[in-house]
Amino acid sequence: MEITRLCANALSELQNKKPLVHNITNYVTVHDCANIILAIGGSPVMADDLHEVEDMVSISSALVINMGTLNTRTVESMIAAGKRANELGIPVIFDPVGVGATPYRNATAKKIMDEVKLAVVRGNMSEIKSLSGMAVQSKGVDSVADETDGATVARAFARNTGIVAAITGKTDVISDGGRVCLINNGHSLLSGVTGTGCMASALVGTFCGAVPDYLIAATAGVMCMGLSGELAEKTLSETEGIGTFRVKLFDQISRLNEETIMKEGKITLA
Amino acid sequence: MEITRLCANALSELQNKKPLVHNITNYVTVHDCANIILAIGGSPVMADDLHEVEDMVSISSALVINMGTLNTRTVESMIAAGKRANELGIPVIFDPVGVGATPYRNATAKKIMDEVKLAVVRGNMSEIKSLSGMAVQSKGVDSVADETDGATVARAFARNTGIVAAITGKTDVISDGGRVCLINNGHSLLSGVTGTGCMASALVGTFCGAVPDYLIAATAGVMCMGLSGELAEKTLSETEGIGTFRVKLFDQISRLNEETIMKEGKITLA
Amino acid sequence: MEITRLCANALSELQNKKPLVHNITNYVTVHDCANIILAIGGSPVMADDLHEVEDMVSISSALVINMGTLNTRTVESMIAAGKRANELGIPVIFDPVGVGATPYRNATAKKIMDEVKLAVVRGNMSEIKSLSGMAVQSKGVDSVADETDGATVARAFARNTGIVAAITGKTDVISDGGRVCLINNGHSLLSGVTGTGCMASALVGTFCGAVPDYLIAATAGVMCMGLSGELAEKTLSETEGIGTFRVKLFDQISRLNEETIMKEGKITLA
Repeated sequence: MEITRLCANALSELQNKKPLVHNITNYVTVHDCANIILAIGGSPVMADDLHEVEDMVSISSALVINMGTLNTRTVESMIAAGKRANELGIPVIFDPVGVGATPYRNATAKKIMDEVKLAVVRGNMSEIKSLSGMAVQSKGVDSVADETDGATVARAFARNTGIVAAITGKTDVISDGGRVCLINNGHSLLSGVTGTGCMASALVGTFCGAVPDYLIAATAGVMCMGLSGELAEKTLSETEGIGTFRVKLFDQISRLNEETIMKEGKITLA
Repeated sequence: MEITRLCANALSELQNKKPLVHNITNYVTVHDCANIILAIGGSPVMADDLHEVEDMVSISSALVINMGTLNTRTVESMIAAGKRANELGIPVIFDPVGVGATPYRNATAKKIMDEVKLAVVRGNMSEIKSLSGMAVQSKGVDSVADETDGATVARAFARNTGIVAAITGKTDVISDGGRVCLINNGHSLLSGVTGTGCMASALVGTFCGAVPDYLIAATAGVMCMGLSGELAEKTLSETEGIGTFRVKLFDQISRLNEETIMKEGKITLA
Repeated sequence: MEITRLCANALSELQNKKPLVHNITNYVTVHDCANIILAIGGSPVMADDLHEVEDMVSISSALVINMGTLNTRTVESMIAAGKRANELGIPVIFDPVGVGATPYRNATAKKIMDEVKLAVVRGNMSEIKSLSGMAVQSKGVDSVADETDGATVARAFARNTGIVAAITGKTDVISDGGRVCLINNGHSLLSGVTGTGCMASALVGTFCGAVPDYLIAATAGVMCMGLSGELAEKTLSETEGIGTFRVKLFDQISRLNEETIMKEGKITLA
């Protein structure tokens, strides 16, 4: 089946299943992540205490780990929840926010990669390259540090790690090591809103909670984010700015359906 | 006096008194809770460290405890602040978010119920039933586990515990064990926004900080939430969605007055 | 050069430099602070764990410390990040939210003032007076406790401490001990939105990350907040309320430019 059709179908599956998505995330964008999971048709739950994360993930359909404002307490919870998710076959999505910026972020990302089997990693080019560097160090695989082609980086990362790579940028690139999807939806205004990366990861998690093919789930999640930004910008008037854009972004997410995806989705296989 | 009139008066009392409301709450919806307390006419303060919660609650007119993202540190603060509020006669409102979902939530809710004298509990049917089950276990009262009638559950809970029960749902039910208020305001879009339950609890807390009859305070708080959702939806255009709905919800809260409550409030005594 | 022109130039410098601003702040308004830093043209980063704050501040152009929801863990991080910033000559902006309300807040504010060399303190009159009282105690300087004139309080605070004082209120007053700037932009609706103080501090931090004269940076930051509120209110219709006002506030921040500041800025030297 054609890739855009698979993504459109994925949205309907998500909306039928209404997956419960467990998020262990940062306190900057957590509210937007909860709202976007609701807006697309899922059900969010946020819980990060070690006393309950294993229980909470057990009743969820996906786990999203986001290390935006990591600390010792929550990193421990992320690992515990991730391991429990692995035992139960629940997909774990990882957003390595800011990896590369500090040694603590690097060590934490490495620890999560080492101890939890991830389904999808969603990050920007710099973040995915940082993670690739860790894989190079620990597995002796070829380095992609100098590589500028997203498809090459994503495919190599996925092959080396067995994790679907979702690199967001002007063109988004998603790969499971074999297939590579390129997405050309989106708008530059999205970079003026905090948390659009976190929200994309939350959407990917919601799709992963409904669709067993994580390449499709990741592609659909990233595409829905970009497409909503694109559609939101089209309805923005001359006198409006970033505040209204953010509101309309959520409007568009909540209005997405198969038809819009089929008509407006710009996904190709590389 | 007629119940709707009592709620309308309660709003004016709140707006005159501008009660300071101390919230120990979750980091997902905390921002909306602060904004809704301001929008209705109160004054929010958020503080959750054990070093200061007793001091902070002492200068407040109500305390709202919300266990949405509970952890060891904040649970201790909730108990300490609750006990100090009890000593000073300051009403404590409890939102048992997600009780029933994990053993840790159950244990925490039970601990709070055991150690703090609560004025109002605000939750959905499932949450109030979970708390009822705890009361059944610890006090040997009759179980309402199989009961589907909100009025019966709310009245039994209030009688068994001495706490005003506020069960929100399609029809909201509030009871102090004697009186039962039914509210038929609201709109299904409210369930598409994260934190409408938390916000309802925050409103209840704000009314409790101004009005000594907690049945009336709880009814007024829950009704203001539903009514604002209902009015917000009426102004939504065809091309808008959940983002704009959320903005208009706050618009309506900030515009509420006695006249609107008298005209649009749908409260009856069961 | 005229003061309004200096502020207008500061905005262009900020937008060219796009300073990275490290925030250690509260979980109530953190999301708005991140969004407002982006909207004005900066780049926000939030990180509060002791394992990484010194690394994070080292790559930043300014550090904003906000004690809105302080706790033992984050206070330690604030001090460590502040000291590192001092070593590197990176300006530290302090928002002493609620100082005066509890002994813990007073002790924390004093600790921060004692251990970190601050560039700017941004607070309301009551907060700045509380800090002044601490300076009186520890340095034996003259008390301003009974003073009602903002210019006198701000100038005395700045002289006694060597920190630029930014007192926000109906008229905002900024002083470095010598110069005193008065700002008459703003609108009363701003007090109906949570976090406008925190956002003003975040803007001040962003300007400090781009402009070496912290009096000008603080004046520009506070003025941009007030001016955006003023412009937002002008576009509000009869049927709208505080929700829409908040959205339009961000619209205006993202649309600010030199021309608007020159035309609408109401800054005078006292």
